[in-house]
Amino acid sequence: MQLIDGKAVAAQIRREIAEEVVQIKAAGGKTPHLAAVLVGHDGGSETYVANKVRACEEVGFKSTLIRYEEDVTEKELLACVERLNQDAGVDGFIVQLPLPGHISEAKITEAIDYRKDVDGFHPVNVGRMSLGMPCFLSATPAGIIELLRRYNIETKGKHCVVLGRSNIVGKPVSMLMMQKATPGDCTVTVCHSRTRNIKEICLQADIIIAALGVPEFLRGDMVKEGAVVIDVGTTRVPSDKTKSGFKLTGDVAFNEVAPKCSWITPVPGGVGPMTIVSLLRNTLLAGKKAIYV
Amino acid sequence: MQLIDGKAVAAQIRREIAEEVVQIKAAGGKTPHLAAVLVGHDGGSETYVANKVRACEEVGFKSTLIRYEEDVTEKELLACVERLNQDAGVDGFIVQLPLPGHISEAKITEAIDYRKDVDGFHPVNVGRMSLGMPCFLSATPAGIIELLRRYNIETKGKHCVVLGRSNIVGKPVSMLMMQKATPGDCTVTVCHSRTRNIKEICLQADIIIAALGVPEFLRGDMVKEGAVVIDVGTTRVPSDKTKSGFKLTGDVAFNEVAPKCSWITPVPGGVGPMTIVSLLRNTLLAGKKAIYV
Repeated sequence: MQLIDGKAVAAQIRREIAEEVVQIKAAGGKTPHLAAVLVGHDGGSETYVANKVRACEEVGFKSTLIRYEEDVTEKELLACVERLNQDAGVDGFIVQLPLPGHISEAKITEAIDYRKDVDGFHPVNVGRMSLGMPCFLSATPAGIIELLRRYNIETKGKHCVVLGRSNIVGKPVSMLMMQKATPGDCTVTVCHSRTRNIKEICLQADIIIAALGVPEFLRGDMVKEGAVVIDVGTTRVPSDKTKSGFKLTGDVAFNEVAPKCSWITPVPGGVGPMTIVSLLRNTLLAGKKAIYV
Repeated sequence: MQLIDGKAVAAQIRREIAEEVVQIKAAGGKTPHLAAVLVGHDGGSETYVANKVRACEEVGFKSTLIRYEEDVTEKELLACVERLNQDAGVDGFIVQLPLPGHISEAKITEAIDYRKDVDGFHPVNVGRMSLGMPCFLSATPAGIIELLRRYNIETKGKHCVVLGRSNIVGKPVSMLMMQKATPGDCTVTVCHSRTRNIKEICLQADIIIAALGVPEFLRGDMVKEGAVVIDVGTTRVPSDKTKSGFKLTGDVAFNEVAPKCSWITPVPGGVGPMTIVSLLRNTLLAGKKAIYV
């Protein structure tokens, strides 16, 4: 069994991006600029956005944080999106989800100019991804593909089982894994809460991508010898062994599953660190106008 | 074994649409208007477009056919698309594919206002479909779903195997079949040219959607007893038994497979007749501004 070290790969990619930013600046080019919009004071969202802003600074991007209180109206937020759409100085921006209940996340997401949608959530980017066209890939699917690429894990003709059909992981990663591409070219099965024989299906998998959000769902007796297992789960499970009082727990019962795997991602330190890197990469691409003019 | 009669279902839906058009007109509403753009004189395209225009007339729509010679420039065609985008009288329009090699199909497709894209090929419609949002569904996937719906075929929790990963059938129908919806809620496996154990996978399927474009690919020994088989293939195979000199042949070896099925679509007369009906339905929805304002 070998560990897929997402933390190390993410650090390597950050270095690559930082070097490219140095070159861009040296050549008199524009410093990539990410803006992040944060509504309210949810602890998780605060942390995520703070990490994104810090990551931008570390690679030499310009970053702007725009904050609104919980009671911002949808209209005000749409006006903010429109300002960012029009602002030629901003290459890409994100509106951190979830938003308060009185604001339509779909409406906000669709209002973002898809050419600045570095989260890859806009229907144009989702559609282009599905069609195999250049686009901003959303962070988690892109991070998974990049890990498979960097570790040279063979995917062509393999049977990839995706657990979960969410719009942000299961569906897009299944599309990417079936694409005529490298990584890709897999036979893909998507399982979810309605799947009846999930154990039987998992036992056929060469590659399992677990994204159900159910802690330790995938047990040792559900995985065949030599499988590649990618664990997307990050559920906070109460724990008396950590200072924070919880423990990040994946969808994979690591101790049981790992001994059977050829490759496996740990939680934490697997897919997680890759997601911010994907956002940085999209912002770099946006700054270079590499996907959309 | 029972036949899924696409011709009969299509006729029924045409009647329903025609009735609704009568009511719309009686209430002083706008007659739905489809425009079709045809470039060149390809025999297949001529026939398809002629059938679409005739189908429009039969249900009481207004239709307009715009023709260009093979040597039309991309710029001229883009200008035509822009005129149709701006024309408030036109509810929806299609540009018949394939286009001559000097014109980018992707560029033309993306230039169409997605609110008039009744073919459902624009990235916005593809993306919204994937995200489970209201949209114009493309014709073949929509026709398949409608057949399953009209025949009350149980899909929830079933294992649906899709053969083929094309942008116009395999990928979108796999997305629809996994969606939390009825029909839908299937465990979905997508197989293609790189799949190694396709027979073994097909034998696990409760529902098989064959869209490889390989005549009689699916043989009797690849299907389990009681399966539902949807045949999307329509390859012209030379034949000395027909006046035209060819025979429309599906991806399913019907004589071998049908006896094992609970339900099966014939070719012709299965999925084929549903595709034009899906276009009519999208045009009706466009006329009513039921999806986009």
